[in-house]
Amino acid sequence: MATAELAKNPANYTTLTPLTFIARAALAHPDRTAVIYGDIRRSWAETYRRCLRLASALQALGVGPGDTVAALLPNVPEMLELHFAVPMLGAVLNAQNTRLDARTIGYMLDHGKAKVFFTDTEYHQRAAAALSDCRQPPLVIDVCDPHVSEGRRIGRISYDELLSQGSEEFRWQPPEDEWHSITLNYTSGTTGDPKGVVYHHRGAYLNALSNVIGLGLPSGAVYLWTLPMFHCNGWCFPWAVTAVAGTHVCLRQVQPERIFEAIRAHEVTHFCAAPVVLTMLVNAAASTQVHFAHPVTAATGGAAPPAAIIEAMEKLGIRIVHLYGLTETYGPSVICEFQDTWAGLPLAEKAGKIARQGILSLSMTDMMVADPATLEPVPRDGATIGELFLRGSTMMKGYLNDPEATAKAFAGGWFHTGDLGVWHPDGYVEIKDRSKDIIISGGENISSIEVENVLYRHPAVLEAAVVAMPDPFWGEVPCAFIAIKQGQALDEEEVVRFCKANLAGFKCPKKVIFLDELPKTSTGKIQKHVLRSRLAAMSA
Amino acid sequence: MATAELAKNPANYTTLTPLTFIARAALAHPDRTAVIYGDIRRSWAETYRRCLRLASALQALGVGPGDTVAALLPNVPEMLELHFAVPMLGAVLNAQNTRLDARTIGYMLDHGKAKVFFTDTEYHQRAAAALSDCRQPPLVIDVCDPHVSEGRRIGRISYDELLSQGSEEFRWQPPEDEWHSITLNYTSGTTGDPKGVVYHHRGAYLNALSNVIGLGLPSGAVYLWTLPMFHCNGWCFPWAVTAVAGTHVCLRQVQPERIFEAIRAHEVTHFCAAPVVLTMLVNAAASTQVHFAHPVTAATGGAAPPAAIIEAMEKLGIRIVHLYGLTETYGPSVICEFQDTWAGLPLAEKAGKIARQGILSLSMTDMMVADPATLEPVPRDGATIGELFLRGSTMMKGYLNDPEATAKAFAGGWFHTGDLGVWHPDGYVEIKDRSKDIIISGGENISSIEVENVLYRHPAVLEAAVVAMPDPFWGEVPCAFIAIKQGQALDEEEVVRFCKANLAGFKCPKKVIFLDELPKTSTGKIQKHVLRSRLAAMSA
Repeated sequence: MATAELAKNPANYTTLTPLTFIARAALAHPDRTAVIYGDIRRSWAETYRRCLRLASALQALGVGPGDTVAALLPNVPEMLELHFAVPMLGAVLNAQNTRLDARTIGYMLDHGKAKVFFTDTEYHQRAAAALSDCRQPPLVIDVCDPHVSEGRRIGRISYDELLSQGSEEFRWQPPEDEWHSITLNYTSGTTGDPKGVVYHHRGAYLNALSNVIGLGLPSGAVYLWTLPMFHCNGWCFPWAVTAVAGTHVCLRQVQPERIFEAIRAHEVTHFCAAPVVLTMLVNAAASTQVHFAHPVTAATGGAAPPAAIIEAMEKLGIRIVHLYGLTETYGPSVICEFQDTWAGLPLAEKAGKIARQGILSLSMTDMMVADPATLEPVPRDGATIGELFLRGSTMMKGYLNDPEATAKAFAGGWFHTGDLGVWHPDGYVEIKDRSKDIIISGGENISSIEVENVLYRHPAVLEAAVVAMPDPFWGEVPCAFIAIKQGQALDEEEVVRFCKANLAGFKCPKKVIFLDELPKTSTGKIQKHVLRSRLAAMSA
Repeated sequence: MATAELAKNPANYTTLTPLTFIARAALAHPDRTAVIYGDIRRSWAETYRRCLRLASALQALGVGPGDTVAALLPNVPEMLELHFAVPMLGAVLNAQNTRLDARTIGYMLDHGKAKVFFTDTEYHQRAAAALSDCRQPPLVIDVCDPHVSEGRRIGRISYDELLSQGSEEFRWQPPEDEWHSITLNYTSGTTGDPKGVVYHHRGAYLNALSNVIGLGLPSGAVYLWTLPMFHCNGWCFPWAVTAVAGTHVCLRQVQPERIFEAIRAHEVTHFCAAPVVLTMLVNAAASTQVHFAHPVTAATGGAAPPAAIIEAMEKLGIRIVHLYGLTETYGPSVICEFQDTWAGLPLAEKAGKIARQGILSLSMTDMMVADPATLEPVPRDGATIGELFLRGSTMMKGYLNDPEATAKAFAGGWFHTGDLGVWHPDGYVEIKDRSKDIIISGGENISSIEVENVLYRHPAVLEAAVVAMPDPFWGEVPCAFIAIKQGQALDEEEVVRFCKANLAGFKCPKKVIFLDELPKTSTGKIQKHVLRSRLAAMSA
């Protein structure tokens, strides 16, 4: 078959970009509600027009292909619009974690060479402090949310003023190359400066479709924004929900009563959240909780959802889908695909299945648990620990201006996740720990997650985290940090007794520290490095 | 933002291919039923292993990258397996229309340079005749379906024998370039030799996902094979259903009682069929019909479904989705996206909405109705007729060994569909006719489809087709061919009276010819060229 002459042309080859999703949503369902926020209701036609205006106004400010536009915003409609308007110019959106300190914000503005900086007036103090140190301060645009009472403007112009300068006649072009950068996401940077992870249009398109299929988003899905949009671009859901012309329900603050009320009032079909948010929902006052009559699916990731949480969520009428991913993989890259046969299992057993991270998502191509030194896959025995490696279409281009870290992350033609786990006979991977969180005690590996899972089963435990504590004899031993549920009591002796009844002796915590709340990142991950520092300070 | 160094590498770039779907289905749902055919039930693990064996056995026969493997098969499991095994080798599958004559089959074998030819023993006579004329006869492999009583083997080896020679240890590689050819589909060729339309891996992957989302296939969807797999590779559903690890229910013959029984017995969720098949179902004996309790979605295309058919299907519990596409667009490329507001419309009005072809599918990028001479878009007034033009990711590479036809099809950077229609204010396109089917009478355009739609509303009409009849005064006038429903009576006078009551006078047929059945292609399209020949013979 001689097909060399069958080349690409403008009719048979177009680049993949999530921008086609919003154009299609506006064409296919112009009158359907695209955005709900407080009293605001906007259709897809209106939302698309606003994005076109925003893009044209940014273009007039000099923003063009390859320029970075930073945004320090909660889950408000403006943040959603930026996910389309900025790529319309071929520019790159840097959605920043709103809980970071001024120094880190300034670092990201400088490192990413932000040309424009959108900031919510609530964050004016940190934003101003960050800008004062910038080598090349960007143009600042205030997003003035009427829900903010203590806000102050620090920019030259407001989002609404900018929008009023734009034109709906703006015509965007898809990127010439689908490898063109679309967003820049900084890792949480628990050690050292954060790294700038770069996504491309192709990956954003493909992960959006993978999310739609993986979570079963129907046309017109109603999606609640509990997961921050600054976190891996909201796991690519700004684009996924738009691909099905669904409704984005924005939420400024993650509070249980607001989540329950939003799900009920808008008949939310899907949301994403870290397990800690699910814990909040489950432990909310009974008067706040709503048992939903319509089907609700919640995707969770970042840590394995404890069995008790899965059970309690199901009782509220919420189906849990466990996902795994990293900033480097556009969010979801591994999914705990539910097996038909699990439906009939006793809950504890079913929860154990769901707590595993799972198998490749649709947009990923290859996965292995392997020896990080040799890249030799470990046996699928559910016991041998190795590092998780990934390959696929929804993998970052690399770290911005950091060729060394990029080369290290992709060494050997695989992405090194830094997560340690086992490979089960059914092909599902189960993360046991971050490389740096594993506890090595007397030559034995102890998975801090395994110990934490046991602690979570104790009825008085609200939150638990286990870290390594230096020990002159064993090298390291486990130390547990615990927050107790309201109205409950617990002491070290009871914790140790409970662990001994459920774990091998060497895995039991040798020290238990009680806190009223465990320190967490903005995305709800418990900050073990903070706990380690506290432990070091206590021992010093 | 300097990102030039953020290049592709084996970890962050992999080519798109539907082969990843079957690997994932076998991994994610190894025990789920992949294929049902008669008494046969095979899991995804088994189906994947069979494909690996088949690929390895074909490789041993010398099949490699770029080689063509032809198949003359009905919707049996072997045909499904070839859709994966052949691309695993980088080879190109040419699924042939099983209703074609020996001369055309031979032409396709020669033109496509088939190296191997799979043929069902039922077709042994035509296959043997086709082979006898071949310039370079391929290796023939018999598919011996036990359901065939009159079959005869003509090949050197049978499918099952070949399979037994293969190895499950075979490891396929994704194509190095996703533009690599995956299949070759010949157009029905109503005039002259058929043209060989070439698809690539990228397009097959993307159209599969577009189908999953467009029709809402859930994980584990149960799909009934009424649409032939040789027709645009079954509109890419061999890959789409596999992407959700669904179940393929194979069906050798399209008979109403078998379709009803299969939907009931296997709880089929989705199927695709030309409107003529829907007509068969609606007109089947009441004793055969089943009213389904579970939701069933049928996608139809190739011609607009008449309102009466949509209504009758809904009464059977089957939701109709109207699609539009051509061989050149991998099947579905335009979809009549259902609007939330249509649900409350009176049925006739709703059916009128659904009968329109619609808007772009998710994998297409651009569409316009335009003047074919100037490529100037027509106004969106629902009245001005223009040609439909398309662009997107699921567009053929071109016609095999026919650079002239390829260049003509893509002239001006758009694919020329050859279909004439109007563009409605809501962005939906409505096909009025094939360019060559439009009737020009006294300088006025008459849409043959418009006249046919009126004829279909007559209670005695089973099938209707309208073609141009030469007229010394008007140039052309409409001539209607009609098949009457069983037990009904009709004459020319009544037809003309009915048309005059529902159409402008110049659009009414000037001649009515009754047939017991209208000639159709294997895909259920009425063959107007046959009717034109008959008309010419009658007038001669």
